[in-house]
Amino acid sequence: MENVELAKRILAGERRALARAITLVESNRADHRAQAAELLEELRGHGRQALRVGLSGTPGVGKSTFIEAFGTMLTGQGLKVAVLAVDPSSARSGGSILGDKTRMERLSRDPRAFIRPSPSQSHLGGVARRTREAIDLCQAADFDVILIETVGVGQSETVVAEMSDLFLLLLAPAGGDELQGVKRGIMETADIILINKADGDLKSTAVRTCADYAGALRLLRKRPQDPEGFPKALTVSAVEENGLQEAWSEMTALADWRRETGHFDARRAQQARYWFEAEVREGLLARLRREPVKGAMEALARQVEAGDVTAAAAAEELLRDYLGM
Amino acid sequence: MENVELAKRILAGERRALARAITLVESNRADHRAQAAELLEELRGHGRQALRVGLSGTPGVGKSTFIEAFGTMLTGQGLKVAVLAVDPSSARSGGSILGDKTRMERLSRDPRAFIRPSPSQSHLGGVARRTREAIDLCQAADFDVILIETVGVGQSETVVAEMSDLFLLLLAPAGGDELQGVKRGIMETADIILINKADGDLKSTAVRTCADYAGALRLLRKRPQDPEGFPKALTVSAVEENGLQEAWSEMTALADWRRETGHFDARRAQQARYWFEAEVREGLLARLRREPVKGAMEALARQVEAGDVTAAAAAEELLRDYLGM
Repeated sequence: MENVELAKRILAGERRALARAITLVESNRADHRAQAAELLEELRGHGRQALRVGLSGTPGVGKSTFIEAFGTMLTGQGLKVAVLAVDPSSARSGGSILGDKTRMERLSRDPRAFIRPSPSQSHLGGVARRTREAIDLCQAADFDVILIETVGVGQSETVVAEMSDLFLLLLAPAGGDELQGVKRGIMETADIILINKADGDLKSTAVRTCADYAGALRLLRKRPQDPEGFPKALTVSAVEENGLQEAWSEMTALADWRRETGHFDARRAQQARYWFEAEVREGLLARLRREPVKGAMEALARQVEAGDVTAAAAAEELLRDYLGM
Repeated sequence: MENVELAKRILAGERRALARAITLVESNRADHRAQAAELLEELRGHGRQALRVGLSGTPGVGKSTFIEAFGTMLTGQGLKVAVLAVDPSSARSGGSILGDKTRMERLSRDPRAFIRPSPSQSHLGGVARRTREAIDLCQAADFDVILIETVGVGQSETVVAEMSDLFLLLLAPAGGDELQGVKRGIMETADIILINKADGDLKSTAVRTCADYAGALRLLRKRPQDPEGFPKALTVSAVEENGLQEAWSEMTALADWRRETGHFDARRAQQARYWFEAEVREGLLARLRREPVKGAMEALARQVEAGDVTAAAAAEELLRDYLGM
C-alpha cells in the first residue's frame, strides 16, 4: 500500500491500517525505515489532542487488571483508547504485555480499544523510538487516550515519562517501610500515585499506604507544572472497579489546567527537543558500529589492550582519521 | 618545563613534577591537553606494577580515617602510596577530599604518600578521564599502591571499579535490614567488603554485619577472576588500627593469584579497551557542542519544538548535512 493511501486510512480510523503502520515503524529494514519516516511526515500535526498517559508499575501491582478496568471504563464513555508498552526485557521474555493482551480479554475485544505489545528490541533506545512513532500513529488515528505502560525496570520509567503528558505510578498496598522502595527520582516524576488493591483485606493497608505517599509527595519541591494539590495519591481497586472514575477526573482536571496555563504544550515541545537530541546522538554513535569505522576501532582497541598506545591517543587517531574531527 | 624533562623528573620520583603533571592533565586548555597527551605517551609502559585499589564508601563510614590509617601502615612498610579521588559532586561542594586532606594530616605529611583532591569538574566523564591520567602519572612515578576513592554517588562506583585492579567497599556496622541498602550491582563489583568501626560498642554489630555480607557474597554467582573464598567480607577498625594488616594480606593474596592466572593483565586490557571506547564516544558527541553543528542543531530543535518537522526527520537532516552521514 502506498504511504498516501495508508495515511488516509489511518486518519479514517482503520485499525488494520494502524496495525500495519506500527509494524512498519517497528521494522529494522532500511526501506521500511524510509517508508515509515515518510508516513510520519505525512501524518505530522494530526491528532495533537490525544492525552498520552504514562503508567509504571512493577509486576504484581495489578497493572493489566487496572488497564483492563480503566480502559473499559473509558471506552464505555465513548473514548477511544490505545495501549502501548515499553518493556526493555521483552526481547528475552517474549514480551510481558503479550501475556497481558490475553489477560486483557475484555479490552482487547473492545472496538474502541487498541492494544499493541512492546516491540521486541533488546536496546531500550530502539524500543523508545518505535514506541514514540507508534504514539504518533495512534494520535493520527484519533485515539483520545494513549496509555503507555512499563514495568519500570532501569531507565524505562524515564523513557515513558518523556513521552507522556501525565505520568502515573501504580503501587500495591504495603508497610510504611516500603516507601523507600520507590526511587526518589520516580516520585518526582509522578503526577498521580495510585495505590491499587484497595479492596478486601488490603483496603485499610491501602488507605494507610496512600496517606504515607500523600505525605511524601507534600515534602517534594513544588513544580511549576502543578496546580494546588498535585502531585497527589489516590486509592483504587481495579478488581472491584472502585476509584477509577475519581482517578480519571483528577487526570483530566490536571490536563485541563496544564492546557490552560501553557504547561501542556511546553512539555510536548520540551519532549520533542529531548527526542530530537537523543536521535542525533544515537545516529552519530551508530557510525561506530558500521564499517570502515568498526574495523578500525577494533584494530586500535587491540593496540590499546596490548599497551602499544594510550586510550586517549588511539581515540584521537580514530576521531581524526575516520570520523573527520 | 619541556615534556622530556618533566617525564624524567616524574620517573625519578619528584613529587613536584608529579603534581605539576597532574595539574596539566586536569586542564581544559587545548595546549595543555596536547602537552598532556604527549607526556602520557612519553611515560607509557612505565610503572605497570602499581596496585590500583578502588575504594567506595558513603559519608560517615570513616573513609578518610581508614585511608589515613591504612595508608600510614603501608608507608610504614616502605611502600609508596598515592590517594586520588573521583567525586562527581566536587564541582559544587569544592571537593570533599580537600577536607579529607586536612583530616588526613599524618598521611599528607608522609614523604612516601601523595594525596590529590578530585579534579573540580561537574561532568563525571571529565573527572574519569583526568583521574585515569593521574593514575598513569602516579604509576610512572613508581607508586606501589594507588588508592582511588569515591563516595559512591550515582555512577561513580562503576567508574572507579573500571580503573582499579581491586575494588573495596567500606561499610559501617548496621542492622540486617540495611543489607538492602547496598545495590546488587555494587556487591557484584566488590572484591573485598570491609566493615569498619569494629571497635567499642559497635564491635559486635560489626561482626554480625560482616557475617551477613559474607553470607550475601556466597549467594552471588562465582566469578572466574576469584580464587576460592573471594569475594570476602572482613571487619576492620580504622580508629584502633585493627584488621588493617589482615585486609592488606587478603588484597595482596588476591592480586598475586590474579597475576599468576592472567586475570590481572586481562582486566587491565579490558579496562583499557573500555576507556578507549568511552573516549571515542565522548569525542564524537563533543562535535554536537561545537559550531557549526551546535547552531544548526539548535535551529532544528526549535522547528521540532514548534511541530514543523518530526524529531526523526530533523535528526536525519542534521546527521546528513552537518555530520557527514
